[in-house]
Amino acid sequence: MKIETVLLSLVVIFLAAKLFGELAERIGQPAVLGEMVGGIIVGASGLRLIDANDPVIHIFAELGVVLLLFLIGLETDLSRLIAVGPVAMAVAVIGVVVPFCGGYGVGLALGYPPVLCLFLGAALTATSVGITARVLSDLGQLKSNESQVILGAAVVDDILGLILLSIVSVLASGASLSVLGVGRIAAVAFGFVVAAIVVGTILAPKLIFVVQKLRVSKAVFFASIVFGFGLAYLASALGSALIIGAFAAGLVLARTDRGKDIEHEVHDVAQFFIPVFFVSMGAAVDLRSLNPFDAEARSFLMVGILLTVVAILGKLVAGLGAMRSSMRKSVIGVGMIPRGEVGLIFAQMGLSTAVLSSGLYSSVAMMVIITTFVTPPALRALMARQPQVAPQPECEDPGVVCDLTTEALSDRDERDAERAGEA
Amino acid sequence: MKIETVLLSLVVIFLAAKLFGELAERIGQPAVLGEMVGGIIVGASGLRLIDANDPVIHIFAELGVVLLLFLIGLETDLSRLIAVGPVAMAVAVIGVVVPFCGGYGVGLALGYPPVLCLFLGAALTATSVGITARVLSDLGQLKSNESQVILGAAVVDDILGLILLSIVSVLASGASLSVLGVGRIAAVAFGFVVAAIVVGTILAPKLIFVVQKLRVSKAVFFASIVFGFGLAYLASALGSALIIGAFAAGLVLARTDRGKDIEHEVHDVAQFFIPVFFVSMGAAVDLRSLNPFDAEARSFLMVGILLTVVAILGKLVAGLGAMRSSMRKSVIGVGMIPRGEVGLIFAQMGLSTAVLSSGLYSSVAMMVIITTFVTPPALRALMARQPQVAPQPECEDPGVVCDLTTEALSDRDERDAERAGEA
Repeated sequence: MKIETVLLSLVVIFLAAKLFGELAERIGQPAVLGEMVGGIIVGASGLRLIDANDPVIHIFAELGVVLLLFLIGLETDLSRLIAVGPVAMAVAVIGVVVPFCGGYGVGLALGYPPVLCLFLGAALTATSVGITARVLSDLGQLKSNESQVILGAAVVDDILGLILLSIVSVLASGASLSVLGVGRIAAVAFGFVVAAIVVGTILAPKLIFVVQKLRVSKAVFFASIVFGFGLAYLASALGSALIIGAFAAGLVLARTDRGKDIEHEVHDVAQFFIPVFFVSMGAAVDLRSLNPFDAEARSFLMVGILLTVVAILGKLVAGLGAMRSSMRKSVIGVGMIPRGEVGLIFAQMGLSTAVLSSGLYSSVAMMVIITTFVTPPALRALMARQPQVAPQPECEDPGVVCDLTTEALSDRDERDAERAGEA
Repeated sequence: MKIETVLLSLVVIFLAAKLFGELAERIGQPAVLGEMVGGIIVGASGLRLIDANDPVIHIFAELGVVLLLFLIGLETDLSRLIAVGPVAMAVAVIGVVVPFCGGYGVGLALGYPPVLCLFLGAALTATSVGITARVLSDLGQLKSNESQVILGAAVVDDILGLILLSIVSVLASGASLSVLGVGRIAAVAFGFVVAAIVVGTILAPKLIFVVQKLRVSKAVFFASIVFGFGLAYLASALGSALIIGAFAAGLVLARTDRGKDIEHEVHDVAQFFIPVFFVSMGAAVDLRSLNPFDAEARSFLMVGILLTVVAILGKLVAGLGAMRSSMRKSVIGVGMIPRGEVGLIFAQMGLSTAVLSSGLYSSVAMMVIITTFVTPPALRALMARQPQVAPQPECEDPGVVCDLTTEALSDRDERDAERAGEA
């Protein structure tokens, strides 16, 4: 791809993201919904100005989601995450088991073979933490207890999803799988997060201490990026996911005494890449697969509707994992709904291993699209019913730095910057 | 290229840039020299961890140089640039004519055919504004009169270089060229810059006025990026160069009342991409082509030395274009020496059109490498002989914002940020 094409694509992506993001905010919706709609307009179903499958755009989008999770990690207080741990774990497990059984059941009811049933079940388990975190951030709610539960549960969900993905891909290849094999995959996935946090918490302050003594420009920033990208790479190499490594790196660095500075500097770079991710997600949508007037598409449309209903109900039930707390189950349940890029990864794997026909791929993709697009307005509506701002216990002194943490990705950046300039 | 490979490459690039940048600063050299040396260590001549020809790395490097020139434009005061205009023009013209004749003469003396002589002459004319601007910035000297002349002359040089490149490429293809054709190419190249600045200066304040009313996050930043990338694309599409469009966009936005904010925000993103450019430049160097113990390489080594001497002398003579001013001719002359990426573009075009043999390509590449690597320490040494800081007439009130403009890319960022935090 030529640099000129990349520049033009980025211009189109940023214009689509910001114009439709603005439109979304004007009608009271989170900006991220506008970015995805903007992606549909300029993507495969619209003007075809952007090809979400272009290798360079794809890399930018992937860097966007890695930096997004790194940033979310930097904004997350590990001790609060651990405090809501049991609730998050319950939400995650219910949110995997119920949709899995639901998807498996849909497959059984339609008379599909067992591997396909297994696959449909697995595709319904994912939660796209990126979408929900971004919406909560847009709404200035990232620090609420409900948000902490959603974040924690989504991470556990990602890990469980990866385990399922490994299992399904082994079965799809026709091989059999031992209990030992499943155990190993699970141990690596969970072990990585725990090890990264334990080892990182010991090493990171020492690293920061040394790096601060360097004379070269932006040493702390680049050390943080190296740490974040390095851990993301390591996570993927060890069989976990990039975004889990990036999130763990953010959690660890947030606990160092330069955590707020790092968050501030990473934020500036992340906001360049993040819109590429959300616009790409919209640009990849092919609305023709959902055409109800096409007889062939119609049957797969029905399967898609069935899967979507099961997907939404399954995650709403997961909210009941917070039963014994005072938190709002509806917010947690809705927050878990979007399948986003994780769901698409399942769908694409199914297509490439020929477990899914191209028609059924459209059904799964439709479930992914609807669950992803329905969440921002639904969360917004739920939040509006409880307008008070969530408590921010770790924010002692009001001011620029604290504002930045809750509004890191929100529309108030610009005004913050101005206030900081005036101060 | 997989996202994991990109993450690992970026980790290696940032580590090489910052570790060797630190080393360079410790021994009193500009950080950019360290970044290029770091690139050699991890690149084709060293550990081979980075492939400068990889498409994604290449795109990142190109974005780095586009953002660098955009940033330099944002830091440049157009009225001061126009004030030194006649001197800069004289320096540029001498700096193109003398090296061109020198290179042509070397070719003639060695009995090469006319097209090849023309090509060698053209390859010696380029000036890599990126290298020099970065060095001046590293040394905190970007606002001095000498720096303004170098910047202005380098831009004119780039335009003249593009005109020569167009002419040479037409001749290399065996076609003949009319005076009208040459005139058209020249008019487009110079006309673009003038038109961009005139139209931009009228439109940009209106654009900023509208964009400031948007609610969406970072609207001014993204509008600026869209403006910069858009103008870079337009410049290239109209037959000028990307970096000239980016520089012109920076010049225009610097004159709006949000100029300083835009500079600040672009800086944060630019510093993510810029090291990729300089490390790539080192990584592309193949030291084996300069091996004096290889008999075949030796003759091309001699041609390379000859070209290098002519290249350096030609630009030193160009410094005399500032004869009638009180500015230091030596600083201006040395500042014009590096051929950098512009020289490499000539060399690669020569290789691809088969005007240059692979041996002569090495000779030209050697000239590019030596002129590029010799400039940072030479400028540093010249500056040390005149230690007082250059005047900064446009900086009325001392403070954070003013500091940022002179030190935008320097080692003092980190300390600035800390001071700003304390203030």
